[in-house]
Amino acid sequence: MISSDFVTKLARKTDSKIVLLVIDGLGGLPGDDGRTELEAAKTPNLDRLVKKSVTGMSVPIAPGITPGSGPGHFALFGYDPVTNDIGRGALAALGIGFDLKAGDVAARINFATIDDAGNISDRRAGRISTDECTRLTAMLDKKIRIDGIETFIRPVKDHRAVVIFRGDGIADTVGDTDPQETDVAPLEATATAPSGEKMAGIARELVSKARELLKAENRANMILLRGFAEYPDLTPFAEAYKLTPAAIATYPDYRGMARVVGMDVIETGMEIADEVSALKQNWDKYDFFFFHVKKTDSYGEDGNREGKIDVIEELDRLIPEIMALGPEVLVVTGDHSTPTQMKAHSFHPVPLLVAADAVRPDHTRQFGETACAQGALGNLPAPEIMAFAMALAAKLVKYGA
Amino acid sequence: MISSDFVTKLARKTDSKIVLLVIDGLGGLPGDDGRTELEAAKTPNLDRLVKKSVTGMSVPIAPGITPGSGPGHFALFGYDPVTNDIGRGALAALGIGFDLKAGDVAARINFATIDDAGNISDRRAGRISTDECTRLTAMLDKKIRIDGIETFIRPVKDHRAVVIFRGDGIADTVGDTDPQETDVAPLEATATAPSGEKMAGIARELVSKARELLKAENRANMILLRGFAEYPDLTPFAEAYKLTPAAIATYPDYRGMARVVGMDVIETGMEIADEVSALKQNWDKYDFFFFHVKKTDSYGEDGNREGKIDVIEELDRLIPEIMALGPEVLVVTGDHSTPTQMKAHSFHPVPLLVAADAVRPDHTRQFGETACAQGALGNLPAPEIMAFAMALAAKLVKYGA
Repeated sequence: MISSDFVTKLARKTDSKIVLLVIDGLGGLPGDDGRTELEAAKTPNLDRLVKKSVTGMSVPIAPGITPGSGPGHFALFGYDPVTNDIGRGALAALGIGFDLKAGDVAARINFATIDDAGNISDRRAGRISTDECTRLTAMLDKKIRIDGIETFIRPVKDHRAVVIFRGDGIADTVGDTDPQETDVAPLEATATAPSGEKMAGIARELVSKARELLKAENRANMILLRGFAEYPDLTPFAEAYKLTPAAIATYPDYRGMARVVGMDVIETGMEIADEVSALKQNWDKYDFFFFHVKKTDSYGEDGNREGKIDVIEELDRLIPEIMALGPEVLVVTGDHSTPTQMKAHSFHPVPLLVAADAVRPDHTRQFGETACAQGALGNLPAPEIMAFAMALAAKLVKYGA
Repeated sequence: MISSDFVTKLARKTDSKIVLLVIDGLGGLPGDDGRTELEAAKTPNLDRLVKKSVTGMSVPIAPGITPGSGPGHFALFGYDPVTNDIGRGALAALGIGFDLKAGDVAARINFATIDDAGNISDRRAGRISTDECTRLTAMLDKKIRIDGIETFIRPVKDHRAVVIFRGDGIADTVGDTDPQETDVAPLEATATAPSGEKMAGIARELVSKARELLKAENRANMILLRGFAEYPDLTPFAEAYKLTPAAIATYPDYRGMARVVGMDVIETGMEIADEVSALKQNWDKYDFFFFHVKKTDSYGEDGNREGKIDVIEELDRLIPEIMALGPEVLVVTGDHSTPTQMKAHSFHPVPLLVAADAVRPDHTRQFGETACAQGALGNLPAPEIMAFAMALAAKLVKYGA
């Protein structure tokens, strides 16, 4: 269910178009020059746009809560990220295009290295290549058989893979086997509720068989399981908002998140310019576009300030092409902050800009954290952004007479 | 129930007085000169007041949600407009002073014109006069008899009337017969839930008999029914807040809204100056006044920018007379925005000013949208305003020891 029942009740289909531009990990912290990555970036086009916009800060979950990518995005899609806690296993499966079905349970796999004592020496198996990951998952997928259950083991990227379990009596109430530290043994898969007993047993069997099959490997001689998750049961976006939605995203996870809510996922090249081309080519077919820019977050996690600034500037140069399409509403924000100083997601709210004819412009003159914190939208819970965008697109009728 | 249980638990009776000044449809959008109606209006008295006030923006329902008059007002009265969804039929009946009783069901009537094929050619019957409406409702009220049920048909204003049904087994789970468009036939009254079957049948009989009785009319030859509503069950204002409340409003609907929550409705002339006179005459008898200014909304809906500005200026000239009475708290806001550009209610938040000795004044120096958006109250949900006003009037005791 989306965060506001109102929106579903009041939504009407119109020709107007909404673009939700999510710059992953957009928010930052002031550097030595007192400016965040966004503030340091030269963004003449976003700054021009901001003068015709209303601004504020998006609060993804709640003050102080650092969102993972899943909750961060579902909040922007208008689904309460707390009541709709969607596990990463399911996201990973959907992200690689696996045809996840109701009743399936998925878990993320990390290939890891264990020493002779059975303790983890590297939780990422030296970040093996995607090719090697593909070879290993194909071998495991072929050789592992568990009575009464189907398993599908698929590569994701680098040392990351995913396993999908299909069969009766399974549930996602199973804890991670990844202890999140080295020099200790992997955890045993155990049920976190009685419903997970069967699944935990199957997971232990899977890990045991994988360990046996991987024992000759130098690096990837073990698997760690994380984020057991059933197929999420979410009201489709099209139904919740009466929109015909499409997603443009280069990375599997974000494509998966879009699929979970029933968005069409459009093919695109890996550059932002490719994504803009995909947007143009599909402009007439949809009335809502989730447009995802990934590398701001990647550089944020790497602590690469210049890299993050470059991506923001690269996007800024493409803003006129997006605006030339004439969206009635353009929302620009991020799913969370990823300050390069922290090399990680953070809890800080995220700059938010909403451009539309029907906004009341505020005093903000630059798209940045310090300026947007003074914006008229204030600290807006991310799940409320969609209702606001719908209203600005004249897609919501009046409540009550 | 009001939105905050706290207030009822902590409220105490004191001599201090609160005035809630609701300027209907107050909020606007920037015109060609970059100023909203309120910003363009010369409001020296409100601007003087604002320097001793704390300001912000009132959010009637939620970001993006456009309120009808009912939800907009009940939100300001502190009742959650979502859990307390009060139908317009009941409001219309209360608004004309009809003594609605528990168990009654009311529906709004619009006189309409249908063509020879039975399709609606004018949903407002050429906006017949109130006199003609009075003649027709008197005739219908006299001649229509339905077995086992009492019906009361009363004029409201222009082409608008109301019917009240009284009897056993009736409910408000009946859909509108007004299709909200022309060149189609009126809808049949049908139940929206099993509880509405009997009521729907009665409504069909009423419409059929009215159509027969009106067939010789040139314009008002049909009735359309909207907003079936049972008597709303709300905690009285006096009980919720320990206040002795009075309402000063020129239009029936708003008088009805006040009656629903048990306010005394004071007689007043139609001008704002008349309302101020009524306020003065009743000042000693009450400790809470809901003071309603209608025409800002009317001009907003007409798209008449100058008219809306004039009403705001007319009100501004009377502010000193209100302040001279010495209210401990004056709240000035609107139930929603009605930008003249949109000629309709809108979802935009509404400027809010709260004047009291105990406020922390903020930086706002003009009562307007742009300035108040920077105010210290931020984007305040409308149902929370009453608690704040009660506190400023020293009517709330401490929570916890």
